[in-house]
Order: sequence, then structure tokens, then C-alpha cells
Amino acid sequence: MPAHALDTDLYQLTMMAGYEAAHANVRATFELFVRNLPPNRAFLVAAGLEQALDFLESLRFTPRQVAWLRESSYFRTVPDAFFKRLATLRFTGDVWAVPEGTPVFAYEPLLRVTAPLSEAQLVETSLLSLVTFQTSIASKAARIVWAASGRDVMEFGSRRAHGPEAATLAARASYLAGCAYTSNVEAGQRFGIPLAGTMAHSWVTAFPDEIEAFRHYANVFGDRAAFLLDTYDTIQAARRIVASDLRPAAVRLDSGDLVYLSRQVRRILDDAGLKTTKIVASGDMDEWSVAHVLAQGAPIDAFGVGTALSTSKDAPALGGVYKLVEVERDGMVTPVMKLSAGGKATYPGPKQVWRQHRGHEATSDVIGLAREAPPSGGTPLLVEVMRGGRRTSAKDPLAAMRQRHLSLVDTLPQGVRMLEPREAYPVSRSSALQELTEHTAAVVAGDGG
Amino acid sequence: MPAHALDTDLYQLTMMAGYEAAHANVRATFELFVRNLPPNRAFLVAAGLEQALDFLESLRFTPRQVAWLRESSYFRTVPDAFFKRLATLRFTGDVWAVPEGTPVFAYEPLLRVTAPLSEAQLVETSLLSLVTFQTSIASKAARIVWAASGRDVMEFGSRRAHGPEAATLAARASYLAGCAYTSNVEAGQRFGIPLAGTMAHSWVTAFPDEIEAFRHYANVFGDRAAFLLDTYDTIQAARRIVASDLRPAAVRLDSGDLVYLSRQVRRILDDAGLKTTKIVASGDMDEWSVAHVLAQGAPIDAFGVGTALSTSKDAPALGGVYKLVEVERDGMVTPVMKLSAGGKATYPGPKQVWRQHRGHEATSDVIGLAREAPPSGGTPLLVEVMRGGRRTSAKDPLAAMRQRHLSLVDTLPQGVRMLEPREAYPVSRSSALQELTEHTAAVVAGDGG
Repeated sequence: MPAHALDTDLYQLTMMAGYEAAHANVRATFELFVRNLPPNRAFLVAAGLEQALDFLESLRFTPRQVAWLRESSYFRTVPDAFFKRLATLRFTGDVWAVPEGTPVFAYEPLLRVTAPLSEAQLVETSLLSLVTFQTSIASKAARIVWAASGRDVMEFGSRRAHGPEAATLAARASYLAGCAYTSNVEAGQRFGIPLAGTMAHSWVTAFPDEIEAFRHYANVFGDRAAFLLDTYDTIQAARRIVASDLRPAAVRLDSGDLVYLSRQVRRILDDAGLKTTKIVASGDMDEWSVAHVLAQGAPIDAFGVGTALSTSKDAPALGGVYKLVEVERDGMVTPVMKLSAGGKATYPGPKQVWRQHRGHEATSDVIGLAREAPPSGGTPLLVEVMRGGRRTSAKDPLAAMRQRHLSLVDTLPQGVRMLEPREAYPVSRSSALQELTEHTAAVVAGDGG
Repeated sequence: MPAHALDTDLYQLTMMAGYEAAHANVRATFELFVRNLPPNRAFLVAAGLEQALDFLESLRFTPRQVAWLRESSYFRTVPDAFFKRLATLRFTGDVWAVPEGTPVFAYEPLLRVTAPLSEAQLVETSLLSLVTFQTSIASKAARIVWAASGRDVMEFGSRRAHGPEAATLAARASYLAGCAYTSNVEAGQRFGIPLAGTMAHSWVTAFPDEIEAFRHYANVFGDRAAFLLDTYDTIQAARRIVASDLRPAAVRLDSGDLVYLSRQVRRILDDAGLKTTKIVASGDMDEWSVAHVLAQGAPIDAFGVGTALSTSKDAPALGGVYKLVEVERDGMVTPVMKLSAGGKATYPGPKQVWRQHRGHEATSDVIGLAREAPPSGGTPLLVEVMRGGRRTSAKDPLAAMRQRHLSLVDTLPQGVRMLEPREAYPVSRSSALQELTEHTAAVVAGDGG
């Protein structure tokens, strides 16, 4: 279900009509970035690029949509030529982007779009929501994955996501950032993500007796069955399982004191020789509670994390913006910026980000102008992904991006990869970017404002 | 884009296979409700029913989906009959629900589904995400609408929503709960919601001069044009507009001290005779900042609210659950419940909610059993909306639901309709429900657990 052309703000369409009328549909460059990181995030994990490129490649107005716009009151003063243009409009621009799974920092462009102003403007709304949503979730998932220190994290949050499509994309972003499984079947089918699941309380309550319920499940799923223990009494359920001939692959604890219960259940299982039966914990968990129960030594093998992950509950939105940085004027490309008060200014010119390393470790980033010579030893983060509206390379397999993410996160300083980060990763601006910023601000203050 | 059959958790499908194998695909009733309201919410606004019913009516597995499931490792021990059943599966159940726009409270069922266990189970995940997401947003929107005390609220949050489909549904829920406009064009087209928009900073920076930019816009949109003032300097921009011959319908302030700026801009406009030019404020606003600037007497005519609204940022998820309350056993309908620790127990039996009034004012709700006689003067909140998988009535127009919402909110006690609520609305359980709960708990503790 790619986004489509009407998934945009009204003003994008009115501005498009305006650019046409003003003969100002010139080539322009926009950059998508996040100004401030949410609390407790020292970096973000770039995600959502694949859906963004799918959207750009498939962008078109249906005849019905064009007819609706033409007849709507908002456009009654717009010349008919505009609607004729919409009917054949395709995205024809170039895109550079940071590959998915890469750690990024405030003000670093995740995406740079160069296209006729109308096209670049139309796509702003969907590009922002596609990229910043998955980036939010991937950034949250990375935290939960560290907290689990090597144990599997399963994304179980579909029911609390912002609708079914958000659920599937949240599953994708979670896997990209290191989760091992999702419960979302659509994500399994669409993206090849490994699926996991146990049983619901309704399964247990649908049968007159708990052990009968477990037995019916095992009859179908055999030694892969996982039983939910807390419908009536967790410890009692564990005792009844070992007293039967059932040998579940796993048991799930979904409420109560997980440290105490996991220890008791582990002992009951071990004493009965069910040493390979895993314990899965779930129930409104997040990175803090995962870290807490593990710090207490809870013998938990895997975590099912729902709401906190699928909505990035503590930081459900990123302040992502998409800003014009360069535009053609009288045939000349001209850097532009915005001066507004309150930290909402922008930096002019198309940019690149170079990451510098010492041995294995990433030490600092430099945000510079795309056209300048890279700093010595710097690795550029933005790569060309689309030219003339077509992808320049095949889609990366998600599992490969996940591996790449895990190894890139590993290069970040330890103080950045903490639930409460202890350091800010150094990001500077090149002298060429600083000079262009000063120069552009002076021009703007002189004649633009 | 209705949700489809794979928009579900893996365990729903494995349990379906299990119910088939255990010959336990009996008729069952589930209820969808929210256990705890988020901070500062004394009620919720029910929303999302239309999308939930669309999903149920269109539910089916495509041949490709069935083939994928059949070949996946998760189902390798499942008999083939199950996949044959999936290929022709339709939702055949009955649904009762609280109409959209109705204020509801903790533990009140928003939806009650009676269907063969397999069907009722399969739809859990999407029903929860469809209903609780829009309910979150509508509940947030209601707060922002009161805060604006009669001024228009425009939903501008598409770019920060959890993807383009979430953006459209957030626009719908916001309008339902009293917002006047949305910027989301798809929501305008799909649901007939009035659209609004101004211009972006990129419009202003795309031209060499700010007034030239405004003039080009006015050339197309005439006296409906709204100008964005803060690209360079808000007050300067207002002065330059009145010094020109431009007569905008509105101006938008998007940064800085909105109280100070709106006063200055109002004076500049008024002094130049632009008394009908409206002032729109935006820029990371929420119910608190809207209330604050109005309390300071800011002459603002309308508010554009984005991120806080489209993500319900302070409460981005509701703890919505969908619980089995009754199941057929040996041909007898049997109430069921879950006893677990930590406030996660459930109440047995299909329920109804009756709202009681004194004059115009709603005074209390009673949650009782659907089969019991209503308390005298109580109005039932749940109505039949689907029978045998088909809607029992036509879709309500969204504008009518919005009007209904506004008048229903008006019946709630004042202390409930506050940004920091001062009272809890009284909700009790009928004695028949209490008796059934005690009886079922005793049975469960005796032989079920």
C-alpha cells in the first residue's frame, strides 16, 4: 500500500499551482532532517527509505483525483493547465539518502531531493511521515535491543500501533534495528521478517480447563508450542504443566513480578527436566523494564515488547523537517535559508555528511557542502539512491540492512549507546558550510527579508 | 485502504488452526475496552468504528496469502483443511458498538463482537489498532477544541503522523471531535472534511523577495490567500504587507512569542484597515499552549495544530484490550473471565452500558449485562451495527457524527471537561454483573485454574 498523491497537505497543491502560474517551477533542492533528538536519544537510526522510494516511483494522480481537485472550491481560481499537468505528473527528481539502519544525528540530512519545485514540494508530507515514523521506531527498537543484551526481542505491538499499516511498518523498523521477530503476519509476508507468537488468554479461557487448553495447542504445534501461564495463576500453571506430559518450547509470563515469577518458573521447569523450555516475558515492557529485570538476574530468555515499541511511546514523533536549501533563480542555482527566531533557522546549500573513524570507532561527523572535498578519511553517509525518478540500485534485503545496522551501532562510542546517554557525539559544520551560511544570511537580511 | 486478513498477530492464526483441530470453533463473544485512561483524560471519544466495520465486511484471504501461509514453517504441522477454510473465510459475526463521537469511560465496551471463535480471534489485532488509534486522536482533539474556546482548530499534523494512512485517519478523528479543518487532502477527498492551508516557508524562500512571493500567491488565490509571516521577521513582514496593496484573508505566525507577535501584527493590520484579515497561529502547539496564549489575550482567530494532535503525543497509545467474555461449551453459553494479578482481570458476560441523566446533564453510567433490564431512565450506549457480517444501517455522515459529538460532550459535567480534570465521572457495575463476576471467579478458581 504505497502512499499516493493526495497523501499531502493542501498547501503543497496550492503552492504547486502557484509555482506554475508564477513560472517558478524551477529545479530546487530540499533536505529532510531532524532538528532535535528526543530525550534519552543520543542518535537516531535512519529508516523508511524503501517506502519513501516506493512512494516516489509510484507517484501519480488518478483521473478521479484530478477531477475531484478541479471541482473543489480550493482550486476554483486555478487555471486549467494545472490540472492537465497533474494528470501526467511523475516524480522525475534525484534523491540522495543515508542508507537505512545507519545511526544519524541532529541536523544531518537523511534525504536530499533535487527536482522541479512542484514535485519536490508535493512529496514533502508523505516523505516526512514515512521516514520519520520508521526512524522513530527503529531508534526506539535499538534501545530495547541493547537493554536485552543478547536475548531475543520480539515486536508484539501491532494492536497498539496507529492503524494496521503503521503496525506493519513498525514491525519492519523494529526488525531493521535488531529485533529478532515480529508477531505481525503482514510484515512476515511483505518483508520476510521472522514471525513469533505464543497464545492469548482467550485460548486458555475458551476451554474449561487450562491444561486441556495447553494440550489442544500442543496437539497441533507439538514441541514448538509456547504456553501462556498467567491467565489464572502463573506458578500454579507451571506446576500443572510439569505434572502433565507436556513439553512446551516456551512459556510466557505476561503479568506480575517478572523477576520472582521467572525464577520460580525456571526452577519448576528445571526440576522437572524441562531445561530447554524458554521463558518469554511480556506485558507493557520497555527498555527500562527489560534492563531492570535482567539487572535483577531474572532467567528470561526473550522479551515480547508491544506498545512502547510500536508507538515509540516516550517519543512518538520526531521533529522532522524538509527544507528548501537551494533553488534556481534566473538560471543560477542560489542557496537559500530561513532566519526565523526560536531555533527554527535552516542552513543553506545541498549537504553531505562525513563520518570520521579512529580504528573501529566512529569519532565525529562533519556536515559540509555536497560539492566540497571530503575531509581526509571521512566516509560520506549520503549516497545516490534515485536519478530521474528511478532507483539507481536494487532494494537491499532487510536482513542485510539489519546486519549492517548492528555493526554500525557497534562503532559508536559507548557513552552514546546507553539508556541515559553520557555523552553527545561530536558533529561539526565544515568551514565551507559556515561561510555559505554567513554569506546567505547576510544576503537574506539585506534584500530578502 | 482497508486493513486485510494478514494484518494480524501470528498467534491469532495459530489459535484459529488450533480451534479447528480441537473442534472448538464455537460461538464466542469478545469485548473491546480500555482499562485505564491516560493522564489528564477524564473520558475518551469513541472513534474508528467505520474503519473497523469496513475491515470486517471486506475481510478475506487472497489465494496468494493462503499459499504463503500454507508454505510457511509456522504452519507445517497444520492439517490442510485449515487452509481450505481460510480460502473462503468471511466475517459472519454480529457487532454491537458505541457510536463514534460518544464520550466513554474506562472499562466500558466500545465494541462487542459475537462470532465463531476463529473469526472473532482473527480480527482482534486490526480492530484494536483501528479503534484505539482513532479514539486516542479524537480524545486529544476534543481537548484542543475546548482549549481554543470557539476559535477554529485546524489539524496540520500529517507530516508527523505514523505514516500516510495514519495521517488520514488522524485527520478524520480530529474532525469528528470538533476540529474545523484538516490540511490532509486525502481526508478531504475520502471523508469530505473541509480543507485548509496557507503556504510553507519554502514558498517564501523560493522567491528572491518576500513580498514578491506573497504577490505571486495572491495572483492565483486572490482574497483567499493566507501568508506565512515568520520566514525572516514576523513584524517586518506584516509592515511590508500593509505597505503593499496586498489584502490577505489571513496571516500565519509559526514561531516566536505568539502573544506579543499576534498583538503587534493585529495592530499593524488594523491600523491599515485590514480588520478582516485573520491571524492563524501554529508551531508545535497543543491544548496547553492554545489555552495559554488565549488566557494572555492573544488576538488569534484560529490555531493550526500538528504533531501533538496527529500522534496524541502525550498519550500516543491507549491500553485497549479485546477480551473473551462468553463462549459456548457443550452447547451452553458460558461466561468466562481472566483472574491475573496486577489489575489485568476481566469481567464476564456480554455487557451493555447505560448512561443516566439529570435534565441535560449526564450524571453516571452503569455497566451491566446485555440481557438485564435497563436501569430506569438509562440510555443504552451500545447499539447493533452489524449482523451476520453485514452492516445493519448505512454509514453516518461524518459531519453529523461531529455535531452529535459536540452536543454529547456538552452533557458531561464541567469538571470532566477540563485540561486537568477535577472530577471522575461516576461509573458503576450493576448488581447482576457483580454477581456474575463473583460466581464466575469462584468457578474459575475452583476448577479452571
